[in-house]
Amino acid sequence: MKNADVMTRLKIAEGHLRGIQKMVEEDAYCIDVIRQIQAVQAALNKIGGMILENHLNSCLITAVQGDDPNERERVLKEIVDVYNAATQV
Amino acid sequence: MKNADVMTRLKIAEGHLRGIQKMVEEDAYCIDVIRQIQAVQAALNKIGGMILENHLNSCLITAVQGDDPNERERVLKEIVDVYNAATQV
Amino acid sequence: MKNADVMTRLKIAEGHLRGIQKMVEEDAYCIDVIRQIQAVQAALNKIGGMILENHLNSCLITAVQGDDPNERERVLKEIVDVYNAATQV
Amino acid sequence: MKNADVMTRLKIAEGHLRGIQKMVEEDAYCIDVIRQIQAVQAALNKIGGMILENHLNSCLITAVQGDDPNERERVLKEIVDVYNAATQV
Repeated sequence: MKNADVMTRLKIAEGHLRGIQKMVEEDAYCIDVIRQIQAVQAALNKIGGMILENHLNSCLITAVQGDDPNERERVLKEIVDVYNAATQV
Repeated sequence: MKNADVMTRLKIAEGHLRGIQKMVEEDAYCIDVIRQIQAVQAALNKIGGMILENHLNSCLITAVQGDDPNERERVLKEIVDVYNAATQV
Repeated sequence: MKNADVMTRLKIAEGHLRGIQKMVEEDAYCIDVIRQIQAVQAALNKIGGMILENHLNSCLITAVQGDDPNERERVLKEIVDVYNAATQV
Repeated sequence: MKNADVMTRLKIAEGHLRGIQKMVEEDAYCIDVIRQIQAVQAALNKIGGMILENHLNSCLITAVQGDDPNERERVLKEIVDVYNAATQV
């Protein structure tokens, strides 16, 4: 089950964020903190891509093969939206 | 026809890049040059999103409604790939 | 003290990530999960920018006004590095 | 002279954008067009980083070593601004 992998990675990212709070508390060097934040962001990019892959292989196929043109349009529009949002974070 | 809009925007981005070269030649302030480069990147993000939208509403629908599971898988995989690449540029 | 604001925001981001795990456990709609992940990434961008601002107004000033050209070069190089990394996450 | 390298790369990016227009005119596969756009964006990221490096090693040093605290503040603020903008394109 794919969700298990996503869950594991989310937990790791959460632990990583806690570690970063510890760094800030202990007055770690700013640049090192920024690099760790960027590492969490890269991990979140990876997780987002995995969830999108699940989505395309399930909901999207159902919607595109289904009979409801509005539903199909909605699902395709959402993918464009998250793609556009991905270019902005 | 959607392509006309994409073409217009690509031409504008190209002209924008020429303008940036002129700025560099004339020793414009570095930060202003960087901001103009970022404006071109934002324009390219917009264009990429438009092309993806076209793609989803044509090739993707054909592939997902088609009979070839390999072709469908290939098309879905490509979308995940460009999504992942989008988070890295 | 600026660090307090950074800490608060890191804690909020951590809580947000826990909320996203709950969404995944409860089989929330994939696109909604992706959007929440993107919201965390935007929050982390903001935090990174705040830490960079602190850094420029302390360590960077000290290094650039100091007598050690190697240290100055090192500090400036780091800023270029995190800028380049920021364009890739 | 660093500007020569920046100019060369800007010209290459401009030529790349013209090539992409040709691809669109000739109805190239959407995903291939998106990938080429992403390649231009990666090239622009690289150019932006080079210009920032030049800037830090000239204007920033002058401002931070100078006597005007407002000018120093302004220059540091600009760097935070382009960093934040970089995380959004």
